[in-house]
Amino acid sequence: MGSIVDELEAVLGPSQLDVSEVSLRRYAVDQAPVIDFQLPVAVVFPETVAEVQAVVKACADSGVAIVPRGAGTGVSGGAHATRNCIVLSLERMDRILALNPDDETAVVEPGVVNAALNEAAAEHGLMYAPDPASFRSSTIGGNVATNAGGLRCAKYGVTRDSVLALDVVLADGSLIHTGHQTFKGVAGYDLTGLFVGSEGTLGIVVGITVRLKYLPREVHTVAAFYPDFRTAAAGVLAVGKARVQPAIMELLDGGTLTQLDDIHGSDLSARGRSLLLVQTDGFGAAAEADVVRHVLREGGATVTTEASAEAERLVELRRHSRGTEVDDEYRVGEDVAVPRSRLVDYVAALEAVGAAQQVHLKVVAHAGDGNLHPTFWIDRQGPAIDAGAMDRLQAALDESITAALAMGGTITGEHGVGQYKLRWLGQEQPEQVRQLQRRIKDLFDPEGILNPGKAI
Amino acid sequence: MGSIVDELEAVLGPSQLDVSEVSLRRYAVDQAPVIDFQLPVAVVFPETVAEVQAVVKACADSGVAIVPRGAGTGVSGGAHATRNCIVLSLERMDRILALNPDDETAVVEPGVVNAALNEAAAEHGLMYAPDPASFRSSTIGGNVATNAGGLRCAKYGVTRDSVLALDVVLADGSLIHTGHQTFKGVAGYDLTGLFVGSEGTLGIVVGITVRLKYLPREVHTVAAFYPDFRTAAAGVLAVGKARVQPAIMELLDGGTLTQLDDIHGSDLSARGRSLLLVQTDGFGAAAEADVVRHVLREGGATVTTEASAEAERLVELRRHSRGTEVDDEYRVGEDVAVPRSRLVDYVAALEAVGAAQQVHLKVVAHAGDGNLHPTFWIDRQGPAIDAGAMDRLQAALDESITAALAMGGTITGEHGVGQYKLRWLGQEQPEQVRQLQRRIKDLFDPEGILNPGKAI
Repeated sequence: MGSIVDELEAVLGPSQLDVSEVSLRRYAVDQAPVIDFQLPVAVVFPETVAEVQAVVKACADSGVAIVPRGAGTGVSGGAHATRNCIVLSLERMDRILALNPDDETAVVEPGVVNAALNEAAAEHGLMYAPDPASFRSSTIGGNVATNAGGLRCAKYGVTRDSVLALDVVLADGSLIHTGHQTFKGVAGYDLTGLFVGSEGTLGIVVGITVRLKYLPREVHTVAAFYPDFRTAAAGVLAVGKARVQPAIMELLDGGTLTQLDDIHGSDLSARGRSLLLVQTDGFGAAAEADVVRHVLREGGATVTTEASAEAERLVELRRHSRGTEVDDEYRVGEDVAVPRSRLVDYVAALEAVGAAQQVHLKVVAHAGDGNLHPTFWIDRQGPAIDAGAMDRLQAALDESITAALAMGGTITGEHGVGQYKLRWLGQEQPEQVRQLQRRIKDLFDPEGILNPGKAI
Repeated sequence: MGSIVDELEAVLGPSQLDVSEVSLRRYAVDQAPVIDFQLPVAVVFPETVAEVQAVVKACADSGVAIVPRGAGTGVSGGAHATRNCIVLSLERMDRILALNPDDETAVVEPGVVNAALNEAAAEHGLMYAPDPASFRSSTIGGNVATNAGGLRCAKYGVTRDSVLALDVVLADGSLIHTGHQTFKGVAGYDLTGLFVGSEGTLGIVVGITVRLKYLPREVHTVAAFYPDFRTAAAGVLAVGKARVQPAIMELLDGGTLTQLDDIHGSDLSARGRSLLLVQTDGFGAAAEADVVRHVLREGGATVTTEASAEAERLVELRRHSRGTEVDDEYRVGEDVAVPRSRLVDYVAALEAVGAAQQVHLKVVAHAGDGNLHPTFWIDRQGPAIDAGAMDRLQAALDESITAALAMGGTITGEHGVGQYKLRWLGQEQPEQVRQLQRRIKDLFDPEGILNPGKAI
C-alpha cells in the first residue's frame, strides 16, 4: 500500500491536492488558540461529492484522520489539524444548487459562504437567518458543523432551526440523505439534528437543505448608552419583560467601546460605559422600537432619539468587530450562555474575576439569548513570557466558566467545543452523558478517523 | 423470580398499579387505527422519577416491554400496547416544577397538559408555542415523544424548537439530563433532539425544560372563502410571496366545511367550497392582516371585511374539529407534508386518488408549512364489512403517500410514525438510513424493551 498522498493522487486532480509547506501551515489551524500544533500530511480540495467519498475511502483504508474544514473561521479549534491527518477543505464546493422562492428553501454545497446565500436569497425577499459574526467569510457547512448562532438568533433561531436536510458522507465513504425537504417532518430519529453541531466527527456534510425566512421590509434600530454594564444588562431583561422580541439585542461593555473608538475614531466611550443595541424588524418594527425606547429610558439609558441611522451604523460596527483580532495564547474569547435572568449576576461575576486575576476583560453579548463573549487578555511583554500572567489568564478563564455553570449556564452557546473547550466539557456534562456520546461516535466512526479529539 | 406484576407491586403503591380488564382495555390503544390489538399485562401510574426508574428496572429484569403513554391522544399508534408489555402512564406526573418569567423558560413533568402550561405561562405574558389540535388534553411529554406540531408552527416552530433540556430514564433505569437551561447551547451532540420525536423508543422522558415565547398582544384573523380547494391552496402561496409570516394559516376543504356545518349548524359550505383562515399576531398584526386580505382578494377569495370576530370563531371551530371522530378501520387520517410550492399539485392529486378509489375525502391543512391532514373514509354498511371498499380505502392511503413522496414530501409532518405508519417508512427512508437508526436504538436499548415496534 502506498502512502496516503499516493492514494489521494489517484483519486484527485493535481490542483486538488496540496502538500506545500505554506499550505500545510495555513490549513493547520482555525482561529482558535492552539494547544497542540500539528501539520497535516496534505490538504485536499474535493469539488464533488464523489471526490469527498473517494478521499474518505482512501483515508479509511490507510487509517489516516480527516479534519473537515470550511472557511477556517471557527474559534474553538474544531478545524485544527491533528496527528497524522489530512485537512479536507470544502471551500471549492461552493454552489447554490437550488433556491426555491415558493418553497422558501435552498439547497447548497457546504462551501457556500453565508453572505453569498443571503445575497441570493435577498433577490427573492428571503434570508438565511443564522448570522454569525463571520458571515462574510464563514461557510454554511462550517455553520452546520458548529450549529452556529449569530446576532438575530433570539428571534430567528440558530443553524439547527434552519436546516431541513443533509447529505452526509459517512466514515466508510458511503453517502446518506437525512431529514426532509418540507418545513415539518418527524419520520424516524432526528439524524439531521445529530449531525448539526457534531463538528465533522460523525460524518462529512456535503449538501444542506435550508429553510429561508422572510427578509424584513422594515428595520428599526435603537442605541442605548448606559453609565455601567450592569445597568445595561438590566435593560435586556426590561425589554423581555415588555414582551417585545427584537431581532437583535447586542450588549457592549466599556472595554469594547474603547476598542471600537481606537479602531474607528468614534467617541462611544465618552457617551457611556456600556451600549445596548436593539434592532426590531418586520411589520411591527416601529411600534416595537417605541416600546423598547420607552423601557430603556425608564431604566436609565440615554437613548438615540433621531432616526436610527447612527444606531444602524453601530450595529454594523458590532457585526464587524471580529477579524481585527485573533485569539492566541495571550487573548482568549469565550462563548458562555446563562439563563437570561442571570445576565446581571454573571456580568458582575466576570468583572470580579477580571479584577481578582488582574487580567483585562471586555465583553460583548448576544444578550437576547443570554449568550456572552467575554474576552480575557494579558499584555504581551516582549519575547519573554510572563508565566505568572499566563497562569492568571488561565485561572480567569476557568473561573468564568465555573461561574457560568454555577448559574445554570453552558460552556459554549454557539462556537462549539472543538478542541479548545474540551477541558471544560466534563464540568458541564457528567461521565454517563459523555459516554453515551462516545458510543454514538463509535457507532458512526468505529475507526475514529473523523476529526478525532474534537467536540465530545 | 416472580411475575412482573409482583415485581411492580414491590415498587409501587396499590393505587399505582392497575390490572383490571377495563383499565387494560382503556390503556391498550391510543387514537390511531389498530392493526394488532394487544392487552397490556398491567398499567402503572408512577408519580415520581424514582418510581419510573424502579418500573423500568423491574421490566428490564423481567424482559417485559414498556409502552410509555401521555394522554393517549396520538394518532399513529405510538402508545398502542404490544405483546407482553406494561403501559407506563405518565399522567400523574403533572406538575409544573418551575416557571421562570425572566428566563422565559419552564420546567415541567411529562404529564402536564399542554393547555395547563399555556394557562400558567399566560399569567406572565408568555406562551408555550406548539399547539397540536389536542392541546386541551395532550401532555407535554406526549408532545415531546412525537415532536408535535400544531397550528402556529410555521411562525413559532415545532416541539423540538421549544425544548431546551430533558430528563430521561434510560433502558437500564438510570437517569440522565440532556441539553441546557439556556436558549443557546452547543456542548456535545444534540441528545435532546435525538430524544424528541423518538416516541419513547430510546428512553422515557420524565422532565422537560421548555423555552416560552411572548404571548402576542394583538391578533388579527382573516377568513377567505374560495370557489374550490385548489384556488385556496394557491392563496397560501400568494401570502408567502407577499413575504408575510402568519401565525396560523389553515386550509379547509369542502368536505370539512360540510362536516362543520353538520356539527355546528353553520352555513360555511354555502359560502364557498374551501376556506382559508389566516391569523397574524404581534405588533405588526394589523398591517400584516391588511396585506393578507389584499393578496387573497386578488386571488379570487371572498374575504371577511368586518372585524375578525367571526374569523376567530372559525379558527376555534377548526382547533376543536378533532375529538368528534376517532380513526378506525373505516376512516384514516393522514399527516403528509409537501414542499409549499407543491400544495396545489398535491391537493389535485388527493382529489384524483379519492375519485379513482371511490372513497370519501376531506382535507384540512396547516398550509403555512405544507402539512396536510387528508382523511379518507368509506361508509360503514352494517355488520358486514365490504372487503372491496376496505381494499380501496387502503389503496387510496397508499397512493396518497406515494404521491406525496414523489413531490419531495414526507409520510408524517407532525404525528409520528408510531406503529401505523411503519408500512410506509421504507418508501421514505432507504435501508441504510433505517439501519443507522436501528443501531442507535440498539445502543440505547439493547434488550429492546422500550416501546418495541414503533417509530423506526
